Formats: sequence, C-alpha cells, structure tokens
Amino acid sequence: MIFDFFSEIKYEISVVEDELKKAVRSSDPLLTETATHLISAGGKRLRPAFCLLGGKFYNFDLDKLVPLAVALELIHMATLVHDDVVDSSLTRRGMPTVKAQWGNRISTHIGDYLLGKSLILISLYDEPLIPRVLANTSVKMSEGEILQITTTHDTNQNIKDYFYRINRKTALLISASCQLGAVACGAPRYLHQSLRRFGHHIGMAFQITDDILDMTAEQIKLGKPVGGDLKQGIITLPTIYALRKSSARDRLREIINKTDKSEQEISEAIDLITQCGGITYSAAIAGQYIAKAKKELARLPEVPVKKTMQTIADFIGIRKF
Amino acid sequence: MIFDFFSEIKYEISVVEDELKKAVRSSDPLLTETATHLISAGGKRLRPAFCLLGGKFYNFDLDKLVPLAVALELIHMATLVHDDVVDSSLTRRGMPTVKAQWGNRISTHIGDYLLGKSLILISLYDEPLIPRVLANTSVKMSEGEILQITTTHDTNQNIKDYFYRINRKTALLISASCQLGAVACGAPRYLHQSLRRFGHHIGMAFQITDDILDMTAEQIKLGKPVGGDLKQGIITLPTIYALRKSSARDRLREIINKTDKSEQEISEAIDLITQCGGITYSAAIAGQYIAKAKKELARLPEVPVKKTMQTIADFIGIRKF
Repeated sequence: MIFDFFSEIKYEISVVEDELKKAVRSSDPLLTETATHLISAGGKRLRPAFCLLGGKFYNFDLDKLVPLAVALELIHMATLVHDDVVDSSLTRRGMPTVKAQWGNRISTHIGDYLLGKSLILISLYDEPLIPRVLANTSVKMSEGEILQITTTHDTNQNIKDYFYRINRKTALLISASCQLGAVACGAPRYLHQSLRRFGHHIGMAFQITDDILDMTAEQIKLGKPVGGDLKQGIITLPTIYALRKSSARDRLREIINKTDKSEQEISEAIDLITQCGGITYSAAIAGQYIAKAKKELARLPEVPVKKTMQTIADFIGIRKF
Repeated sequence: MIFDFFSEIKYEISVVEDELKKAVRSSDPLLTETATHLISAGGKRLRPAFCLLGGKFYNFDLDKLVPLAVALELIHMATLVHDDVVDSSLTRRGMPTVKAQWGNRISTHIGDYLLGKSLILISLYDEPLIPRVLANTSVKMSEGEILQITTTHDTNQNIKDYFYRINRKTALLISASCQLGAVACGAPRYLHQSLRRFGHHIGMAFQITDDILDMTAEQIKLGKPVGGDLKQGIITLPTIYALRKSSARDRLREIINKTDKSEQEISEAIDLITQCGGITYSAAIAGQYIAKAKKELARLPEVPVKKTMQTIADFIGIRKF
C-alpha cells in the first residue's frame, strides 16, 4: 500500500522492502512467521519514504540510507506491536493484530525483538547524530504513550496537551525520518534541521488527520473500527474542541466517561462533535501545519523531489485513509 | 542489596546508583514515580558491578564507565518490567511488580522508556563495539524470551535447548557487561574477549543457580514464590534431568502439563526432582561453569580486582539468594 506519489522512489522503496524482510529473519520459526505477518500486513512505509526523500536533498546514496530506512520502519512497527499489547485492539489495518493471534506475552517480546533489530542497523552508522536523535525520539515516544494512557478520559485537557502528546506519539519519528535521511547522506546542519522542521509539521498534520479519520472514515478504508479513540476514552482534537464549544458538551462528557460505550453512543458523540464544528476546526489546524510545512519546504534547495514533498504535504490534508 | 565483595568498588557503585536515579527522571510525574519505585526495589546491580570490574583490568576511568554501567542496569530493568507484563507475576524481589501496581499497559511503555534511556547513554560512546554488542544482545535476549514462551510445558526439550535459552536470557548481558567495561576503558581485543568469556561462564552458572533456587530457596530470601518456574511450566535444568532419570517421570510430566497446579503438586514435583538428584546434578553443572570462569580468569592480568572476581565466581555457586 505505497502512496502513488512515492513512484519517484519506487525502486528504492522496493529495496527497503526486501531488506525489511531480511532484517527480521530469525532462527526461531515463530519469530520469522510473526515478523513476516507484520510486514505483509503492509503499512504506508511513510517513515522509510521520508528518509529516502530527505536523502534526495543532498548526496543521495542508497546504500547509506537503506539500513536507516529499515530501522525507522522497525521502530514504527515495534511501537504498533506494543500498542496492540496495551489497548486490547484486535485488528489493525484490517488484519488481526499480533496480540489477537499470539497473545500479549509474545507481542511484548516481538516488539522488543523488532526494536533490537533496528538497533543493530543503527549501530552500523558512525555519524553520532543518528543514534542520538533516535534514542531521544524513542524516550519521548514512550513518554507520549504513557501520557496518552494517563490522560485517557481526562476531559479537562487542552489543545496544548494534545499537541505535546501527538508530537511525541507521531511527529517526532516522522521528523527524525526526514532529518536523518539527509544526515546519513552527509548533509550540512542547516539542511537537515530544515527537513526536521518540515517533518515535524507534516507529522503533526498527519496525526491530526488520523484523529479526524478515526471519526469520519468508513471502517473498510480505515482498517480498524471507527470511533476507536472515543471508545477507549482517548481525547483528540475534535473532541477537545467540542468539549469547549458544543452546547451538548455535558452529554458528550458523560458519554466519554462511560467505560462501556454502545455503538449508538459512539455515533451520538461523533455527531455532537461534527455538528459543533469539531471536525472542520481540526481540519483547519491540520491545514495550518501543512502550510508551515510548505513554507519550510520553500527554504530547501531546488531538487526534483521537492515537488513530491509538496504533493505529500497537500495529500496529508485531504487523505481518506 | 549490594554484594559484600563489591566493597572494592563501593564508591563507584554509589556513583552509578545516583546516576541511575537521575537517568530515569522525566517531566511526567507517573514515570518518575514508577522509575523511582523500580530503582528502590533494589536488585544486586550485578551488571554495573561487572562492568566496573571489567574496567579495572585496564585503564580504569570512572567517567567513561558510569553511563555504560547505568545503561546495562536500565536494559536489565526493562527486561524485568517486560517480563512482568507477560507472565502475570505479581511480586518480584518481594515488592509488588509494576504490573501489579499500574497494569500491563503502563508496564510495556515503562519498559520501552527505560530501554530508550539506555540508548541515550549508549549513544554517548564513540567506540562502535558498545552499541553493536548491546544491539545484538538485546535481539538475542528477545529471542530467548520468546523461546521460553514457546517451550513452556515442552517436556521433550533437552539440555542443549536449555543452555541455548539461558545464554540468551541471562548470560549474554552479564558477558557484555564484563566485556564492555573493558572496551569502554580502551582495553585491547584479547583482554575484552577474555572478559566476555568469563562473563559468559559466570552468567550461565548464575542462571542455573537461579533455577535451582527457584526450587530450594525459602520464599522470604528469594523475594518471589518458590516453584514459580514449575507453576508456569518453565522447564529448567533440574526438571530436564528428572524427566530423564526419575522413576516417577510420568507423574512429573503429568504435574508439569497441568495448567492449574496446586501448592501440594508443586511441592510433590520439587520432591521428585530433588530425590532423583536433579538439584545436585544442576549444582554440579553450575560448578563446571564456575571452574571454566576461573580458568578464564587465570589468563587475565594480575590486577587487584582479580581476587574479587574469583570470590564472585565462588559465591555464585553457593549463593542462597
């Protein structure tokens, strides 16, 4: 499920794909089976793609980029697997999760295994910025995950709390992907810092859109149940807005605080959020991040993939999956 | 709960202890609380101690060793926390586990957080061997954990399977601790390779003794319920021996295969294992590893801590906790 506009790096992505399969091989048959399952379940390969595109802004060198691109996807996969352990979700991308097939115990260690495999790849790099940025990112990602748990059902959280959380949860790794692709190719500081900022804005827009889609998408496109966040009590931007602006905010709070919510209550909550403008407000905020990303992009050197980066930025604001 | 014979590195261990507390601090109060809980729950600090002792064989430099020593303990702690997620144990070292206090979801991310913090410390080192050895070790540790799950209740496994598993589960990280302490101080290859082998033998002996103690210790000394491995269907060396040599091996197999075992059945199994010589056999195997460790030690340079290493080797074979 590779985005069409990645056609420019289609060959490179296919190399990453092959190396991804090789990277997770183990002498243990269960591990190999599970990892193959995880890889074939797909994913947008957004982080490897951003890493490769980042490299295109300087002395592009595929050999230098592939281990990093694979490592970024492995870190992302490890996070998904560990997420599946904790939030009891039974499908992801329309496929049964590792947890549903093998249980919590296996999932925890599979996640650790994928993370370990990424560390082997990262340790190949002499450039100290690569392990340092990724180590910091992984700490902050865990902080974001814990924050998401501790703020579940907390209807008092504000937009700042939300931004802080989604930066850790999503934007930081996308940002690191853009930046480190350039770093791996030896790009100077101003360039990889600019790509880092671009990635941050794109990452924020991506997660806001994800949170919107969780309320508006059709289940079949999303590959997971609609309203999943609300069901779990995860408060995202549309909800934060509605909890302040909706005339029915007391009813909305009441639904959110219920531990067992019916499908009907989830639908009602989504309707309340939509009616008061929570979705359009959030889409506008995503749009602002996209504008910031494009502004940052304007500063970057004129290379062929710049157009692709622009297309991606535009797409993220209007994507339906 | 620092071993007495670590008195030689008492000051250094106290520095590691302070840095350990600093390393896990977070802006998130829950994270800081949990990490403090984990640290104050103690532990033998065996890996930091071996790292420091390894450094004493060459140009000992505490500044170069402390981040590594802290990272090793963090990796170990992360493993324990993730273990607690998966095997539903509610106490460890006599204290409630993270899981018992905060649940599976938090535990998974706390483990990832600790691991991330260790990566930050490891990324400080320019010596490529340090991240590489630790990345490989972490992959193999996950493989060991998964193997332990998939071989649960498998009464056909042999001694070779057991050695393969405990090497991954325990010996590799102790071995890396010994080796990398020397590496961090710039020791030549022959020296850190010798320490690596010493650490392997000590680590194997340590885990075998651990598995013996799981059947023979008093609960108060062990800090966790006796017979825990048998209860969970984890087959350790004394059991493997008994499954071959005991005249009551059919009864033993029957107890192991029960999903719900009574305290009385656990006691019966331990008695069967002990009576056929499973404990003494295992102690003898541990003794062989200790002999190998001491033989390896004989090749190492004559430095003051060599005596300490010998004492540790001897202690591991006779320890009661």
